[in-house]
Amino acid sequence: MGLHNFLKEYIHGFWDYETPKVMVVKNRTLGVIYRSVQFLVITYFIWYVFISQKAYQESETRPESSVYTLMKGSAIHGDEILDTVEYARPSEGGDVISTILRREFTFNQRQDTCAEHFNVADANCTTDSDCVEGEVNFNGHGRRTGRCVQYYNHTFKTCEIQTWCPIEEYAVVREPPLEEAINFTVFIRNSIHFPKFKVLRGNIKDARNKRDIKRYLNKCHYDEESDPYCPIFRLGYIAAQARENFSELLFHSGKGGVIGVFINWKCNLDLDPSHCKPTYSFRRLDLRKDLPDAGYYYRFAKYYSKDGEETRTLIKAYGIRLDIIVHGHAGKFSPIPTIISTVTAMTSVGICTIICDWIMLTFIDKNEVYSERKFDEVSNKKRYSFSATQFHLFL
Amino acid sequence: MGLHNFLKEYIHGFWDYETPKVMVVKNRTLGVIYRSVQFLVITYFIWYVFISQKAYQESETRPESSVYTLMKGSAIHGDEILDTVEYARPSEGGDVISTILRREFTFNQRQDTCAEHFNVADANCTTDSDCVEGEVNFNGHGRRTGRCVQYYNHTFKTCEIQTWCPIEEYAVVREPPLEEAINFTVFIRNSIHFPKFKVLRGNIKDARNKRDIKRYLNKCHYDEESDPYCPIFRLGYIAAQARENFSELLFHSGKGGVIGVFINWKCNLDLDPSHCKPTYSFRRLDLRKDLPDAGYYYRFAKYYSKDGEETRTLIKAYGIRLDIIVHGHAGKFSPIPTIISTVTAMTSVGICTIICDWIMLTFIDKNEVYSERKFDEVSNKKRYSFSATQFHLFL
Amino acid sequence: MGLHNFLKEYIHGFWDYETPKVMVVKNRTLGVIYRSVQFLVITYFIWYVFISQKAYQESETRPESSVYTLMKGSAIHGDEILDTVEYARPSEGGDVISTILRREFTFNQRQDTCAEHFNVADANCTTDSDCVEGEVNFNGHGRRTGRCVQYYNHTFKTCEIQTWCPIEEYAVVREPPLEEAINFTVFIRNSIHFPKFKVLRGNIKDARNKRDIKRYLNKCHYDEESDPYCPIFRLGYIAAQARENFSELLFHSGKGGVIGVFINWKCNLDLDPSHCKPTYSFRRLDLRKDLPDAGYYYRFAKYYSKDGEETRTLIKAYGIRLDIIVHGHAGKFSPIPTIISTVTAMTSVGICTIICDWIMLTFIDKNEVYSERKFDEVSNKKRYSFSATQFHLFL
Repeated sequence: MGLHNFLKEYIHGFWDYETPKVMVVKNRTLGVIYRSVQFLVITYFIWYVFISQKAYQESETRPESSVYTLMKGSAIHGDEILDTVEYARPSEGGDVISTILRREFTFNQRQDTCAEHFNVADANCTTDSDCVEGEVNFNGHGRRTGRCVQYYNHTFKTCEIQTWCPIEEYAVVREPPLEEAINFTVFIRNSIHFPKFKVLRGNIKDARNKRDIKRYLNKCHYDEESDPYCPIFRLGYIAAQARENFSELLFHSGKGGVIGVFINWKCNLDLDPSHCKPTYSFRRLDLRKDLPDAGYYYRFAKYYSKDGEETRTLIKAYGIRLDIIVHGHAGKFSPIPTIISTVTAMTSVGICTIICDWIMLTFIDKNEVYSERKFDEVSNKKRYSFSATQFHLFL
Repeated sequence: MGLHNFLKEYIHGFWDYETPKVMVVKNRTLGVIYRSVQFLVITYFIWYVFISQKAYQESETRPESSVYTLMKGSAIHGDEILDTVEYARPSEGGDVISTILRREFTFNQRQDTCAEHFNVADANCTTDSDCVEGEVNFNGHGRRTGRCVQYYNHTFKTCEIQTWCPIEEYAVVREPPLEEAINFTVFIRNSIHFPKFKVLRGNIKDARNKRDIKRYLNKCHYDEESDPYCPIFRLGYIAAQARENFSELLFHSGKGGVIGVFINWKCNLDLDPSHCKPTYSFRRLDLRKDLPDAGYYYRFAKYYSKDGEETRTLIKAYGIRLDIIVHGHAGKFSPIPTIISTVTAMTSVGICTIICDWIMLTFIDKNEVYSERKFDEVSNKKRYSFSATQFHLFL
Repeated sequence: MGLHNFLKEYIHGFWDYETPKVMVVKNRTLGVIYRSVQFLVITYFIWYVFISQKAYQESETRPESSVYTLMKGSAIHGDEILDTVEYARPSEGGDVISTILRREFTFNQRQDTCAEHFNVADANCTTDSDCVEGEVNFNGHGRRTGRCVQYYNHTFKTCEIQTWCPIEEYAVVREPPLEEAINFTVFIRNSIHFPKFKVLRGNIKDARNKRDIKRYLNKCHYDEESDPYCPIFRLGYIAAQARENFSELLFHSGKGGVIGVFINWKCNLDLDPSHCKPTYSFRRLDLRKDLPDAGYYYRFAKYYSKDGEETRTLIKAYGIRLDIIVHGHAGKFSPIPTIISTVTAMTSVGICTIICDWIMLTFIDKNEVYSERKFDEVSNKKRYSFSATQFHLFL
């Protein structure tokens, strides 16, 4: 075959249309099975892919979110009043905010020498020779001076150390917990932006009248049922929703904890953006309440000058930390995912033929009428008889 | 049919090759339609899937990112100079940093008793019997002592409360805003790591000469046009890019705000990694400027000892918070997504046959020449005539 | 054809089953090729898609995570002992925590007038006329008063400025680094929650006996080999794993840095959840050690009242910042992804036919026996001879 013929054929053949040859089986049983399988596949696609998964939508799952928090409330403590500046930390109002529930003070610490705590390994001593000068025990509080001294106003002796004196374990003053904390509120302002769809939404109730909002925000407390669009949350409500007993956080273990405040945005932007509203959920994030290091606490100090020397009040604060976590998902109709899903649906219908072929050749094709017509054997050598059993091998 | 025959057939049949039978339609119209549809599908795949979506690339969308920020600049305030330690908080240089624009001071507060603010519900009184001892109003400042006292140096009376005295609303001293803040700069160092591709990039201009960089970083300010690789941003520039009027942030509402600094890395790692450079965008993240709780402010206190008593200066600080948000996406050629996309493309070409079969049997197949040859009817009972109308049902 | 006939055909045709006609080629070579290609495709799917990619699992890649950190250790500094309250910041124990390695103090700063640093542009002067009153140099420290004064106790003169005096560059006192920091430990508690699967896991070793854990957590240090489930990390270990020389961080450049602590959860929830355990990795996150602004430092101040005036100690702290970054991935068997992957696998087998058809028609079909039987030409006009060359066009 020369080049001339090749080109001629090429040009002729190019504009031909090819389509598979099909055998039409006039068998009611098979027809019903085929249509049933087809119906199942199509129903699955329409229901699961299109309706449930919204595969016709372009989606955005990582929106830009901004959180601002502000704590409010006051607690009474004997003659002392604690306001937000005292118990809320950090003060800058980011997406992690903690409130103090209980404090342990060590007053008037200064750089000095004093007795090590008796629980620290090798700290108990009777003479100076029991204490190695310069030694630092990792679980201890400072560097040993090499002297053995009386343990504050007790009768036994421990090694003297150089540290912030007096040590916390000895001088600590435990405050009762702030029971009023259950009524503290946290204002959470969250705005969310879906850059792909240029939609910006906030979690504060819409209203035409500015005064109305102001009045509403001054007195409302979030409640899933009665006030779903109020962004002010009572700590007690948060703890209850996270299935934590508030008084247990305060008293029993008294160790505080970390609670996640989840703001979930699930927006179908084929509807009006005003339908795009957040839902809230609450869950305790730390676990292992029975561990020695469970709960949430941190230490900080207030420094001041006393008699010209730097002095500090060490505060060990047990509290609740709120981690505000925003999840967002938005979807909007877009032609390309629609086309892709439709094409996938159509090609998936092909699975029906595989199933029905298997049924036909195995159960229905008694006299090999169908297989004879479906399969056209071509051989250079000789012909075999052919039956349905072979079909099993394809699958 | 015995087992012997079955096995014989199985072994013979296993090495047979099966291929669909095809009808070649020598019809120029249909051929043109078929090739056009095929051309569209293939063009779509090459353009959209391969070129636009880069489906031949393996991608990484959640890189590891590290942000370090440092504020610079000084503001003059009467006789006082504010430097970065005074106005930038928190000081640790993370991905959220705020600068103070305006401060409201309440000096010399201490734990004491004083008059409640007259705006608080039920705070106005004429005699002691109007004030319930021990009562705490949530929007108030502390616990009522049960006495009715003169409201500071005014003529009317309010209930006395136990709190940090004097109360903020009465004693507040409002500072004028820091107009120099428009010239404050924030240095943002961002490095990004794509673990899948082992690529590490930073946002600071490359240069052979260390001295050159040092000199450049000492004087450059980021500008999209003239200095795209300088990591030092003027606050005024950031506000302008976020379409905010800086003086409005300072004066009019004077409530500050939250601005997002977005660092976008879109890296095609099939090119040299040096092409992988960030772009910046800026957007105001909080909304609802007209709400009572709009803007960005927080309160903190400076503590000191006065006459042996703990005293504090309460500071309500309005400011700008910058949230630095990093988005990263990197792609690199990989055989597996290429194969998957190619196979998908090839199977999608099958959609052409469905369309063209429909056209052929509906519009072109006048004399049922094609349908007669395409469809081979098999029936155990009798034969029906068959025509194109039936084809509609498949789709 | 009337409506009556149409409906009759429609109803008859609807329950027909259609299946493609197939040509069986009894050719051993082609059969072997076909089965080999099929074997490759099926092997790829089983191995890559099902075993390696676990496509039969529903997966969750963005779990809810909570991190709590606590630093421990003490450092000796001449007569001063630094404990965690002094060197760890911020104190609240979030997912970013830094420790100070080296401090530079500027003591007793107060709002005053003093000489500008001589390195600042135009700061050197001989007479008052060299200094413009009210000028603020951006790289300088404050506002010029218009006087030319002696540079502290030196012989040359610079412009006087109004600022926190004395300026840092002149009065700075550099402390030696905290060599003990190598033995500081950071306790990292991480809990992770996969909401889709309702699985909650923590990174602390499980044990039946509370006392056992307490004793273990009191003395263990994380080590990949010997203590993989201890959540307490030595700073020296972290630096070594991040391939950083700790003493270089302290001394040589002495500029600190940012190190990422990556907690990776890869959970196959088809197994028991107790197999879901984290692995840790460490990597330096900042780069460009040779840049002037490399490393990690921040400034903060301690305020106190001296002779009735607000005075501060400015501290420039070089340190290590640890960014704790949690990655989580969980997968669990689910019928829908399994069906989708299986269907995709089955349709992908169709690619074998395309390859083998091409081989058959190009290399094996010498006498056009196969193409004659495979292709059935239909034309209204005339018939062309048809050969394998045409097949190339389909691909």
